[in-house]
Amino acid sequence: MNRDFTFTFGGAVSCVHIQGDTPSIGDIMDSAGKGASKAVLVCDTHTAPIARRILGDHPAPLCILQPGETSKNWASIEAVLRTGKDAGLARDGLFIGIGGGVVSDMTAFAASIYMRGAKLCLVSTSLLGMADAALGGKTGFDLFGMKNLAGTFYPAPLIYMPIAALSSLPGREWKSGMAELIKTAVLDNADEGGAFLALLASLKPLLQDLPISPRVLQGSLEPLVACIARSVGIKGRIVESDPQETGGERALLNLGHTFGHALESSAGLGRISHGEAVAWGMARACGLGRGLGITPKERGDALAELLRAFGYETAAPHPLMGDPRVFMKAIQGDKKKKAGKLNFVVPAQTGAVMVCGEQVDPGLLARVIGGVS
Amino acid sequence: MNRDFTFTFGGAVSCVHIQGDTPSIGDIMDSAGKGASKAVLVCDTHTAPIARRILGDHPAPLCILQPGETSKNWASIEAVLRTGKDAGLARDGLFIGIGGGVVSDMTAFAASIYMRGAKLCLVSTSLLGMADAALGGKTGFDLFGMKNLAGTFYPAPLIYMPIAALSSLPGREWKSGMAELIKTAVLDNADEGGAFLALLASLKPLLQDLPISPRVLQGSLEPLVACIARSVGIKGRIVESDPQETGGERALLNLGHTFGHALESSAGLGRISHGEAVAWGMARACGLGRGLGITPKERGDALAELLRAFGYETAAPHPLMGDPRVFMKAIQGDKKKKAGKLNFVVPAQTGAVMVCGEQVDPGLLARVIGGVS
Repeated sequence: MNRDFTFTFGGAVSCVHIQGDTPSIGDIMDSAGKGASKAVLVCDTHTAPIARRILGDHPAPLCILQPGETSKNWASIEAVLRTGKDAGLARDGLFIGIGGGVVSDMTAFAASIYMRGAKLCLVSTSLLGMADAALGGKTGFDLFGMKNLAGTFYPAPLIYMPIAALSSLPGREWKSGMAELIKTAVLDNADEGGAFLALLASLKPLLQDLPISPRVLQGSLEPLVACIARSVGIKGRIVESDPQETGGERALLNLGHTFGHALESSAGLGRISHGEAVAWGMARACGLGRGLGITPKERGDALAELLRAFGYETAAPHPLMGDPRVFMKAIQGDKKKKAGKLNFVVPAQTGAVMVCGEQVDPGLLARVIGGVS
Repeated sequence: MNRDFTFTFGGAVSCVHIQGDTPSIGDIMDSAGKGASKAVLVCDTHTAPIARRILGDHPAPLCILQPGETSKNWASIEAVLRTGKDAGLARDGLFIGIGGGVVSDMTAFAASIYMRGAKLCLVSTSLLGMADAALGGKTGFDLFGMKNLAGTFYPAPLIYMPIAALSSLPGREWKSGMAELIKTAVLDNADEGGAFLALLASLKPLLQDLPISPRVLQGSLEPLVACIARSVGIKGRIVESDPQETGGERALLNLGHTFGHALESSAGLGRISHGEAVAWGMARACGLGRGLGITPKERGDALAELLRAFGYETAAPHPLMGDPRVFMKAIQGDKKKKAGKLNFVVPAQTGAVMVCGEQVDPGLLARVIGGVS
């Protein structure tokens, strides 16, 4: 099942290895290349067993964070930096993040600022990490209640995606990661026949009975690995074309995220999983695109049906949305604003397009979000 | 007296304007180019009057930090980020740092992580800022007692050096900045005749009676501006050749800093000014270079004499060094270590060279530092 990718993000090379099992720390230190003299491992309490397996009897220290979005904060970053400092890492020291999106984002951010940039390897253990977070260099943590308010662009030169790690993934995490896979499939311009979306739909039985038993996982390995590999390929190529989201193409990867991030904020960070928020956000983006005459009805309907089939909430307003004014304030704080104007990504005939917020009638936006008077 | 420079640091363009007076916020917003829709100003209690003059009646908020090395910490960074967030800055918002090295380092770091990178302008109001800190993209703050443990490379696209700001500079700050000017002159390979060092020596009367009166400053404007401009040119070209200190040439700018940073740490951050520590560090580098047969005796003697003439402590051990074991531990934590090995920059026949720590006999190192048994 091994698949290897090499991307170049604005001069930084990123190698991705999709493989069966986790690498050993020896494999990682060898692949991290010359000069990585010392390493620290970062994980959370869920991924600590995987981290200990990777570590073996190597003396590198382990920094174990609390899991989940609520610990994606400066205190966690400081804990990672302190582990590096106490272990005597210099600028050529290696930070190895072992976990899902949260551990990836935080380890990569800490590495990016440690002595102005240390070495970095990510071992992605969740579907969300493999489908999205580990690849492309976006790092960050939440601040003042805003998702990823602080962050950097710092692509990991070395990324492992060990499929075996998914066998211990909680059900909620499967659902969170699947939404990012669906998002990438919607963005896939080459997917005119809808083959990628159909492949994803074939994974539905996988999510019927969560968490997935190792036997069921084993039986669905082939299409699952194919979906992850296709997603890695699509996202990698988009990021290669616009590494720091200056040109516009990378911003398309935010499909569902403008609405989704605002939902995460207004519900209270950590109350709804990132992927579930993004899935709901994609349904909103379809509604907006329909209202603007951009998203074809059949495409919007098919996507909504797929999302519902995977058990995502697609109706507006979202039951966890809370105060609509808080939601609207959060959406106004979106990072993708330019010259004070919001931008939205909406599905088109194929792929998706960016729409300038000025073209969006406030009444249409309110109807799409729901509950906003 | 206006001098303008344009550098390219690995794809990032940095424009430097040496000029008489401070720019207005209107000038800055115009020069910051399209799309900088909102701005926040960052200063410390010393530079707040300058910041208010720049601001005029513009509604941008002012974030006033406590001055000095002891406030170069995460709490200050968070205050800057919060000001940006509360003012509704998006990724295209502009952070304007008005102050010396500490304000420059912190504003630039905050801008570099705000929504993964916002716009940045630095108005350098101290000699240290003009001679060194504002230019070249190194940002950072102190953590766990270690200088600049956390930081990024984030060159400011727009830098002003208003000479008038120096008229309110405290005496200690003059002394701190002069050391970085001397360092740059030592590094100047083109200065075989020692013209730059002689020009600096001509500024000695300026520092006899600190703080400098506006009348004395006015009388020495021409050589002072010439020294700052020459320093900007030399540093800019070195950084252009090695923007992120990967190739080795930029590391030469750390002349005096391996010893100096360790002294700052062991004395207790903020107890000795950065420049005074660097001056002492340069005297150590000369001693080391002499012991290794790299620094010619005459050059080492001339530099030590110049440093003493400016009133710098050049003897070892330094009276504020404190526990030599703390000093040695700090030196071992130096960011420039590679594969666990320290590196030192020492003056050569012209310019300076990097010496691998392995070539340095521990006994020689102990004698050079002094007080180490």
